[in-house]
Amino acid sequence: MSIITIIGAGQMASALSFPATGNNNKVRLVGTPLDRNIIDTAKDTGFHSTLKRQLPKTGIEYYQIEDVNKALDGADVAICGVSSFGVDWFADNILPIIPEDIPLLSITKGMITKEDGEMINYPQYFLSKLPCNKKLSINAVGGPCTSYELADKDNSEVVFCGEDINILRNLKSLFETSYYHISLSTDIVGVECAVALKNAYALGVSLAIGLAIGPDGSGKEHYNSQAALFGQSIKEAKHILKLVGAGEENIIYFGGDLYVTVFGGRTRRIGTLLGQGFSFDEAMEQLKGVTLESIIIASRAAKHIRSLAYKGIVKLSDFPMIIHIDDIINSGASVDIPWKAFESEKI
Amino acid sequence: MSIITIIGAGQMASALSFPATGNNNKVRLVGTPLDRNIIDTAKDTGFHSTLKRQLPKTGIEYYQIEDVNKALDGADVAICGVSSFGVDWFADNILPIIPEDIPLLSITKGMITKEDGEMINYPQYFLSKLPCNKKLSINAVGGPCTSYELADKDNSEVVFCGEDINILRNLKSLFETSYYHISLSTDIVGVECAVALKNAYALGVSLAIGLAIGPDGSGKEHYNSQAALFGQSIKEAKHILKLVGAGEENIIYFGGDLYVTVFGGRTRRIGTLLGQGFSFDEAMEQLKGVTLESIIIASRAAKHIRSLAYKGIVKLSDFPMIIHIDDIINSGASVDIPWKAFESEKI
Repeated sequence: MSIITIIGAGQMASALSFPATGNNNKVRLVGTPLDRNIIDTAKDTGFHSTLKRQLPKTGIEYYQIEDVNKALDGADVAICGVSSFGVDWFADNILPIIPEDIPLLSITKGMITKEDGEMINYPQYFLSKLPCNKKLSINAVGGPCTSYELADKDNSEVVFCGEDINILRNLKSLFETSYYHISLSTDIVGVECAVALKNAYALGVSLAIGLAIGPDGSGKEHYNSQAALFGQSIKEAKHILKLVGAGEENIIYFGGDLYVTVFGGRTRRIGTLLGQGFSFDEAMEQLKGVTLESIIIASRAAKHIRSLAYKGIVKLSDFPMIIHIDDIINSGASVDIPWKAFESEKI
Repeated sequence: MSIITIIGAGQMASALSFPATGNNNKVRLVGTPLDRNIIDTAKDTGFHSTLKRQLPKTGIEYYQIEDVNKALDGADVAICGVSSFGVDWFADNILPIIPEDIPLLSITKGMITKEDGEMINYPQYFLSKLPCNKKLSINAVGGPCTSYELADKDNSEVVFCGEDINILRNLKSLFETSYYHISLSTDIVGVECAVALKNAYALGVSLAIGLAIGPDGSGKEHYNSQAALFGQSIKEAKHILKLVGAGEENIIYFGGDLYVTVFGGRTRRIGTLLGQGFSFDEAMEQLKGVTLESIIIASRAAKHIRSLAYKGIVKLSDFPMIIHIDDIINSGASVDIPWKAFESEKI
């Protein structure tokens, strides 16, 4: 029996309480300042108001953020459960108080582009934000797993990445269940990059859905065009993974995750709206209040590629899809898939 | 203006008449002995009875098989439009009469396993079946493209493969339209293997659909489990592509094609039925009369892998998904996805 302290009580973080308690661990679920109502409701009724599920009946305790030190006291693992919009808060407020002798496992997915165009992942970012002389084992979760289905105990295959395979094996032993399957990888850069990119490209594949159903949504979904964008996504992601020095096997995580994300909620919705012909601002207006990591990732990935192209390291023409997505998001371009630019000749 | 003679009037072969005539070529559509009714109806009404579409109004002529020589007379390209069940008929009856000075483009997808376990693709098979001293440029079409959507002029991205890039470029010039986009590759083995394998693995991904909706079909589709199988498909296909000496970029065609095939008709249906708990025989009974290339490809790929494992070249444990699919099809195994076998450690 171990004590797992999850900081951030959003959907995915809270869904992790199912495999964690299922494995006879104790979970302490700590809300961020934004999760106050979630924690209050869950404490009273066991119901998670955004995951829309009853959380496990036993083995779980709820904490408001004021009690985070108490929740970390004696914990064996800390989970970073904030979305990419909460990482700075987490880095500033939580990283300093996590004991050095317990590992951190982060479910936050995404990449940050530094001023010089270099992309770094959240484990790297957290590492750079650690207080002077502090050491912490920072690990992360990738792979195709939506919170609803994890909470419903549907079979899911994820990957834990980190520097130390022994720590990863220990983390796996805490969370592995008959429905939650965990691969391990020390290629943090590769896993995180694959996981982040899939958000951007899922938006791109979803454009074809919108194009097919049309402005009034009455058209029939087509798959040839989605498949063409899916294939182009794999092509560009393979190239980007190589650029960041990632192992080629990470395309597996990218592909599976891209597949599930195209069916997921938010990213599919924004891509579909754009494909239907709404401007980026109109589409964002329709999705008001929804956090859209795909927008940020796509913009950051494009920025990275543009910076590499500027330095002569890559050709922009090798990335027509992500560049078009970026043009739609950040330059007001209309959707006009550059199909011809996807064609290739292999001699 | 070129003359394109399509032999075999099934759905995909007939759908090709849209980009072909759209490019101002003349199409001669020749039915096999099994297509007699299709040709009769199309000649009378312009309607294709299995594609369920009006064929192009101009630029297309219909021939019964007796007139195949007339249809080939003066043609600039011959298209092999039979399904994988018709290749022997095609090899025996049509290959000998195609003039040597025109290229053949085959839309038949699949692989054949020779007695020694080696897998060869249809272009290779056709080459081996050419009459003594006959030379013929044999090319093939791969990539994610369903016939219905091609007929509806939805954007589709395919790949033409063959030995001679100049012939491929010429073929591309005949078929390329604003909606039919064509990449070219001289890696015939890679393209054909990717294209064939996607059928087998699409069956595998579809198992998760059946598992989720359950025996009575009332359950809700889940995506985490489909995504896990999708990722595992990419993993195993990458490995198989390497084994057959294919370029690694072919995983792009595999991924896009796998995506569209999971949504396609027949392969998804058999996988779903098996996942729901029907035995292979029961599932086949429900799909009576439907040609299922996925069954053949999966069996052949598994046979190939077992033969390589027997020789000590690979480990069977590296291919748990295709081996399980094969066990279901050929050994009466119940569906029991080997999730744990999909887990990996990358150190």
